[in-house]
Amino acid sequence: MTEAKKLSEAEIQEQLSSLDGWTIDQGKLYREFKFANFVQAFGFMSQVALLAESLNHHPELFNVYNTVKIHLSTHDAGGITSKDTQLASKINVAA
Amino acid sequence: MTEAKKLSEAEIQEQLSSLDGWTIDQGKLYREFKFANFVQAFGFMSQVALLAESLNHHPELFNVYNTVKIHLSTHDAGGITSKDTQLASKINVAA
Repeated sequence: MTEAKKLSEAEIQEQLSSLDGWTIDQGKLYREFKFANFVQAFGFMSQVALLAESLNHHPELFNVYNTVKIHLSTHDAGGITSKDTQLASKINVAA
Repeated sequence: MTEAKKLSEAEIQEQLSSLDGWTIDQGKLYREFKFANFVQAFGFMSQVALLAESLNHHPELFNVYNTVKIHLSTHDAGGITSKDTQLASKINVAA
């Protein structure tokens, strides 16, 4: 697998313009999702888990009841990489 | 459903003695679980989700890769109740 390179600030801003709902929080890509209830929220988390495993790139997931909060960054690169923007984009399709 | 009453400090300490691995963090029951990998960690989270839904009592779940962190409290009671100790006990069986 090719190593993903840390994106520059300019590259991140450019990517954010096409990633609906995502912002930067604590140096990571971040989005909060709200659902009608826990079953829907956890169903979405399960979709995210399958995407993450298939990309071999794993998010920070936080869930309480109908809310899911996701942080994405690439530990090995020390920042946000194309792996994160790719996963964010697929998560948006799932949501 | 009967309302669960907030447990006293003494009651919480008594319950903790039989809840392996659980401590108090930020006024909530708290335990961290480590697994071999993400698939196992998320499988465990799914079990917790089914338990939570069947008890109609939902945890705060945090996951990154092989780590799952769980906080339990009862919002309506403003603290820890028997609902939390019951769910913690069932989570331990699942883990």
